Amino acid sequence: MTESGLAERVLKGDERSAGRLISLIEEGTEEGYRELRGLFPFTGKAQVVGITGPPGAGKSTLTGGLALAFSKQGKKVGVVACDPTSAGGTGALLGDRLRMKNAEKRGIFIRSMAHRGFHGGVARAAAGAVYVLEGLGKETILVESVGAGQAEKGLSSLCDTVVILYTPDYGDEIQLLKAGLMEIGDILVVNKGDLPGAAEAVGELSRAAGSRPAAGGWTAPVVATRADRGEGLAALAEAIEGHWRFITRAGLEERRRAKIASLLASLLREEVWRRFGGAVEGSAAWARIAGEAMDRRIDPYSAVEAIMGKTSFFIEGEGPGEKRA
Amino acid sequence: MTESGLAERVLKGDERSAGRLISLIEEGTEEGYRELRGLFPFTGKAQVVGITGPPGAGKSTLTGGLALAFSKQGKKVGVVACDPTSAGGTGALLGDRLRMKNAEKRGIFIRSMAHRGFHGGVARAAAGAVYVLEGLGKETILVESVGAGQAEKGLSSLCDTVVILYTPDYGDEIQLLKAGLMEIGDILVVNKGDLPGAAEAVGELSRAAGSRPAAGGWTAPVVATRADRGEGLAALAEAIEGHWRFITRAGLEERRRAKIASLLASLLREEVWRRFGGAVEGSAAWARIAGEAMDRRIDPYSAVEAIMGKTSFFIEGEGPGEKRA
Repeated sequence: MTESGLAERVLKGDERSAGRLISLIEEGTEEGYRELRGLFPFTGKAQVVGITGPPGAGKSTLTGGLALAFSKQGKKVGVVACDPTSAGGTGALLGDRLRMKNAEKRGIFIRSMAHRGFHGGVARAAAGAVYVLEGLGKETILVESVGAGQAEKGLSSLCDTVVILYTPDYGDEIQLLKAGLMEIGDILVVNKGDLPGAAEAVGELSRAAGSRPAAGGWTAPVVATRADRGEGLAALAEAIEGHWRFITRAGLEERRRAKIASLLASLLREEVWRRFGGAVEGSAAWARIAGEAMDRRIDPYSAVEAIMGKTSFFIEGEGPGEKRA
Repeated sequence: MTESGLAERVLKGDERSAGRLISLIEEGTEEGYRELRGLFPFTGKAQVVGITGPPGAGKSTLTGGLALAFSKQGKKVGVVACDPTSAGGTGALLGDRLRMKNAEKRGIFIRSMAHRGFHGGVARAAAGAVYVLEGLGKETILVESVGAGQAEKGLSSLCDTVVILYTPDYGDEIQLLKAGLMEIGDILVVNKGDLPGAAEAVGELSRAAGSRPAAGGWTAPVVATRADRGEGLAALAEAIEGHWRFITRAGLEERRRAKIASLLASLLREEVWRRFGGAVEGSAAWARIAGEAMDRRIDPYSAVEAIMGKTSFFIEGEGPGEKRA
């Protein structure tokens, strides 16, 4: 079917081909996307679980523990770790930890992604990796990602279930974490449950979750863990399975269509910028206007307005897509 | 000069007009940007200091303490707090804290921003607020922002000096924080210096900073603080002034030109998306293609490729900006 046969080999369960294909997608090669096309119709069977939270919350340790817990239940597990900063960060750490626990012998496939470009870049590569792991036949796919604003929304568009980690020591900031993160969190975890304030944090999050159930009537459960000792992981795994039963009953297909729409929007955003933004930035007109702004002869907003006034854009068969404001 | 006279009133030091103008900029109104044009030539005199770090690191407390410390030295201080999640978060907390300390009597102008849209949105509104505070005659402007990937790069393009907060309890993740954050950090702070591991964290960060001095020979100093008790704030204020002396000597103008260029790029990115992305998303062609992707008849990457193949884009006087790949 496909030219290099990578997709076929992935569908037969060849992990080395899976790794190779993910690399091709990360590098943004034609071949990567072409092979992915062959895989896409076979995706959509796994439960994709996002695990997010701020640095220091213990995401790597918890993800590793969960991967082992699901694997011990007989599930085929894949892990995609999205580094927040640079290659060799979390993903590598997570990989190291799992390797120490003989994760590979258990058939857990682990892949760490470099964080590429803007938000769209993360979604792009991570989505590709998830599709490859689905093609490989993984049943539970854990996607670990640092939690922060848009990155989380990207994660939400990739995952069936989003788990958000807190620790008890956020103090006042737990208020705003609650507000922002709870919008996308299907399950809330208070990790480092031995720290002072853990019970209060669980209580506070539970009350907040109870007061705003998500569409369809799901109320995010709050689970206390000590991931470093494996405590609470069984309860968390059970909560994740509970959410899967819920969304399967409540209309998985509809939910996934909405998530694909959201992923499409972020891929489109990235591509629009890459092509048109690159063209604008490379133009002689922009060089002149930007120079004036750097001299403080024109403010940055007026500079952007000035260059946008010189651009036009068309969609085939639909006439001008945008006229000057 | 300007139609509503807001810019003039800001230049005369009217704080109420400053607040009003920042609101107009946040709302993205024509009037806001028009008035900002009148202010821009008067900007560039203050030291703009960014304060960033993950949730829980104690940014609000530290920013409040620093604002008071600079104010007690007789400096005119402004604070821009960029909420990571929603209006009423950190900024409001910070405002509450400072108000308790009679910050307003000391002439500290505090403004909290709602986090709008993607990364570009943050830069857009926060940059506007900084320009307004400069117009108001503030000499030291503190910009507090949650630390995460691109948000930090946006902060770096706004600020002369970037202070990054760590806490001793990041564990392994300090490794990747170091890698990612140190690229933009001019001063590193280990807050919560009473927690175990503080001395080790200071040592580790100092070694890392020493091994990669920034362009021009600046080595980021590492300062230990307990912001909740005000400990270490005098040393931090001194480090911030030391950095100002350094960049003033090393070529402030060149540094600021580079930062304006980076701000321009993020404003341009946002605007390109808003206009062209919006046009693509609203097109009949995209509705059809996106529908196929939601049915899993076409993969998301091919869907984006398909719609991009139907678009074209021109810059006045420069011919086609982008041909089909």
